[in-house]
Amino acid sequence: MSSYDFMTKDELQKQLNVLKKRYQNFKLKNLKLDMSRGTLSKEQLDLSMPMLNILSNDSNFTSDSGIDYRNYGFSDGIWTLRYMFAQILNVKPFDVFVGGNSSLSMMFDVISLYMTHGACGKRPWSSYERGIKFLCPVPGYDRHFKILSHFGIEQIPIPMKKDGPDMNIIEEAVKSDELIKGIFCVPKYSNPQGIVYSDETVKRFSNLSPKSSDFRIFWDNAYAVHDLTGSCKFLLSLMNECLQNSTEDLPIMFCSTSKITFPGSGVAALAASQKNLLEIKRFYSFKTIGFDKLNQLRHAKFLKDYENILEHMKKHRKILRPKFQVVINCLSKEFSEQNKDIASWSEPKGGYFVSVDLYPGLAKQVIKMCKKAGVKLTDAGATFPNGIDPNDSNIRLAPTCLPANELALAMHLFCICIKLTAIEKKIKTLEDSCEHISN
Amino acid sequence: MSSYDFMTKDELQKQLNVLKKRYQNFKLKNLKLDMSRGTLSKEQLDLSMPMLNILSNDSNFTSDSGIDYRNYGFSDGIWTLRYMFAQILNVKPFDVFVGGNSSLSMMFDVISLYMTHGACGKRPWSSYERGIKFLCPVPGYDRHFKILSHFGIEQIPIPMKKDGPDMNIIEEAVKSDELIKGIFCVPKYSNPQGIVYSDETVKRFSNLSPKSSDFRIFWDNAYAVHDLTGSCKFLLSLMNECLQNSTEDLPIMFCSTSKITFPGSGVAALAASQKNLLEIKRFYSFKTIGFDKLNQLRHAKFLKDYENILEHMKKHRKILRPKFQVVINCLSKEFSEQNKDIASWSEPKGGYFVSVDLYPGLAKQVIKMCKKAGVKLTDAGATFPNGIDPNDSNIRLAPTCLPANELALAMHLFCICIKLTAIEKKIKTLEDSCEHISN
Repeated sequence: MSSYDFMTKDELQKQLNVLKKRYQNFKLKNLKLDMSRGTLSKEQLDLSMPMLNILSNDSNFTSDSGIDYRNYGFSDGIWTLRYMFAQILNVKPFDVFVGGNSSLSMMFDVISLYMTHGACGKRPWSSYERGIKFLCPVPGYDRHFKILSHFGIEQIPIPMKKDGPDMNIIEEAVKSDELIKGIFCVPKYSNPQGIVYSDETVKRFSNLSPKSSDFRIFWDNAYAVHDLTGSCKFLLSLMNECLQNSTEDLPIMFCSTSKITFPGSGVAALAASQKNLLEIKRFYSFKTIGFDKLNQLRHAKFLKDYENILEHMKKHRKILRPKFQVVINCLSKEFSEQNKDIASWSEPKGGYFVSVDLYPGLAKQVIKMCKKAGVKLTDAGATFPNGIDPNDSNIRLAPTCLPANELALAMHLFCICIKLTAIEKKIKTLEDSCEHISN
Repeated sequence: MSSYDFMTKDELQKQLNVLKKRYQNFKLKNLKLDMSRGTLSKEQLDLSMPMLNILSNDSNFTSDSGIDYRNYGFSDGIWTLRYMFAQILNVKPFDVFVGGNSSLSMMFDVISLYMTHGACGKRPWSSYERGIKFLCPVPGYDRHFKILSHFGIEQIPIPMKKDGPDMNIIEEAVKSDELIKGIFCVPKYSNPQGIVYSDETVKRFSNLSPKSSDFRIFWDNAYAVHDLTGSCKFLLSLMNECLQNSTEDLPIMFCSTSKITFPGSGVAALAASQKNLLEIKRFYSFKTIGFDKLNQLRHAKFLKDYENILEHMKKHRKILRPKFQVVINCLSKEFSEQNKDIASWSEPKGGYFVSVDLYPGLAKQVIKMCKKAGVKLTDAGATFPNGIDPNDSNIRLAPTCLPANELALAMHLFCICIKLTAIEKKIKTLEDSCEHISN
């Protein structure tokens, strides 16, 4: 129910005309604003500028074991970074493997490896005639889904609850179907809703008894230190829980500095049990002579240690928090409690997105209208497998990149488009039912 | 025939004793020298030090199209680099795609893509029940072979001639066998012999008529600008030749700055026809949000253009040439013309290696003896598919990393080990034949 339900067709039409005028005025502004991806704002990028010339002739380029970081050579990663990532992922440094600039690429690589060679001696995932399946908490991260689509992996949507994905469904599914080989999770500040998995959820993940012994949890901890408030939400260590349950081969964990230093020029890492790690490192020893150790060194010198990262992230928070407030304030102002079924939204305590759920059937049209007026949003359906939101309802907002004044403008337009689309739908429904009556 | 053939057993034994004493003396030196890989020397690494702090607050981080290189964003590469790599590979800039830090990784990725998805709409290479095959000019690069082994691809050795691989065999093989899907080539200063493919060889590659339309030439032009003499050997443009023959989908070309700036922290690139490129770029758009554009920018600012790269390479040459001379001089001094069947070697005009062919059956033992005395050489057999040299004869020397004095020491030991092993073998043969006569 919304306030529109109590309006006559004339009242709705009147409101629609006002909104249309306001929409037209927006169009005249010739905006060109992008809220589609979780990119960093210029201010955030500037925070890491000292890292760019932190290496010089005076730097020590030699590791304790005598490796010149400037030369060839495969390694598990510079120790400073292994310690740092171990704290970020809440695992032991020995379980961390530092890679290149992209954690997504590492997820792709691991799935690719399992497709062609299987996991830990099991048959290759590509060898199942009927194909394999992944569980996908929805709404979720489009790039996870795209990796799965690339490999022709069936994606089973799992509804998200307030404390993580629906564990009842997951437990039942993995227990009975050996074709289910994995699940993608963003356990802290999930993309797009910003949900932090509860202790119980993490414990239940560590307690899974999949029918398939090569089932893997792809634990993409992309926002591990990306808090928007001072009271950071704590995520239980999945690896520690697994070790207690002897299920340590279940998780493959990922993180990166993409949203700590520079996206695209950061450092990514992976953590896993020694058994999984051995296999993954062997794979990489075929694939490359080594990752960029100078960029690792740059990050080690700039970020120093975990405590310093937390200090650095406070600076990000200072920039980001007001932006999220603009988004939440605008939505709260425009959509009162009684209009929550037209638009409801997440109020994340961290991460990079706000998730908005509209009245079913509105999302595509709202995104189209915003685009026409110069505001680019994440594609409709992007938060669902194969780009199809069955309710055409969810929209992911990425408030990080735009300056606050432009963000306010974009949000204003966004709200107008929602109302306009909702009223148009309401009028259409009224007309359809009148027609029905007159027939 | 060698001079040992004219010695009596006693004379040989005497010589052996002298060599053994010299070998023991070497052992007392407690050497720890590595000639196993084509790494860069400290002096070479120092050449690129100004690149490390070439980016600063004053740098322009914005592309012509408005992209902030510090942020996310997928691109075909910074234009300066696309131009540069186009000249290195002798193709059009539009055909160049700039990647991460490793060309080997890009080769792996392309083969992985073709294994799981096929090339240009053809069936996946992994879908052939009997498996697919690659042609492998031998001796060749171990890491190429290892990629093929990883994917279970059969490797058919193709003998190298003075102007490239034996094209008669290649032409016949690809014409008749549709399971042959590719060939790995290092066309300029081949690894390990330093052979430059002749114009005729390149033309014949461009004229191949493979039975399989998804046959691909993996053209690893790793040493395109790595000349050791002033008179650089010219390599014909395979892509231009292919365009003239409408076979432009045959080659996938690779290069990198690993041996121009910093190994592991360089920039790699790939060039291919638009049809191939489109497919490969689509693959990467699933795999990553983008490559390290800041490292690309660093390279663009430091290397500037192709002409400047050639100037930069002169500095490398000045460091490397004397080292290759140490190797060649030592071999020439120790093995006269009449001993060429005990040891013969390449005298490369560029690249990173000297290839030594020993009397059959000696290589493993020589490498083992060198190792025991503290000099590490590339593993025996490494230059052949599956690590098996059928003649146990070829050894790859990598003279680039060691300082000249240490290199001379290592070469001295290497020659002693060859002679020692050759004489031991000769004595054994004599004993065996005596035994045969007395029986």
